[in-house]
Amino acid sequence: MRLGQIFGSNVRRLRKERGLSQEALADEVGLAVTYVGQIERGQRNPTLDVVERFAEVFGVDPLEMLKLPG
Amino acid sequence: MRLGQIFGSNVRRLRKERGLSQEALADEVGLAVTYVGQIERGQRNPTLDVVERFAEVFGVDPLEMLKLPG
Repeated sequence: MRLGQIFGSNVRRLRKERGLSQEALADEVGLAVTYVGQIERGQRNPTLDVVERFAEVFGVDPLEMLKLPG
Repeated sequence: MRLGQIFGSNVRRLRKERGLSQEALADEVGLAVTYVGQIERGQRNPTLDVVERFAEVFGVDPLEMLKLPG
């Protein structure tokens, strides 16, 4: 599984765990909602800075965003 | 320490461990040598695909490229 796909599935999982809509999450990370949706579906190739922005909003270590859960 | 800086220091360390010049590494990953130098100095914000390309050339797990060694 590619890092971008693992990252996207973690973004979606953490967003839902926190009860956030894609719109609310996009506001928090300061990215377009369409981009957040594409990230969640593994359709984008985000930079390390973007990974860190999501990790900060979710309050997790950036590396956790790139690991398969469990 | 930012992920980009950790990544850069790992690229430099692994490149030297394998006895590669920046030019030889750039050839292997298919990126410009100036870009590889900037990555090593933590001056770029690489994408997850780029992290995976270096990991493949070095034969390590992509996540290892983003962890402080030791």
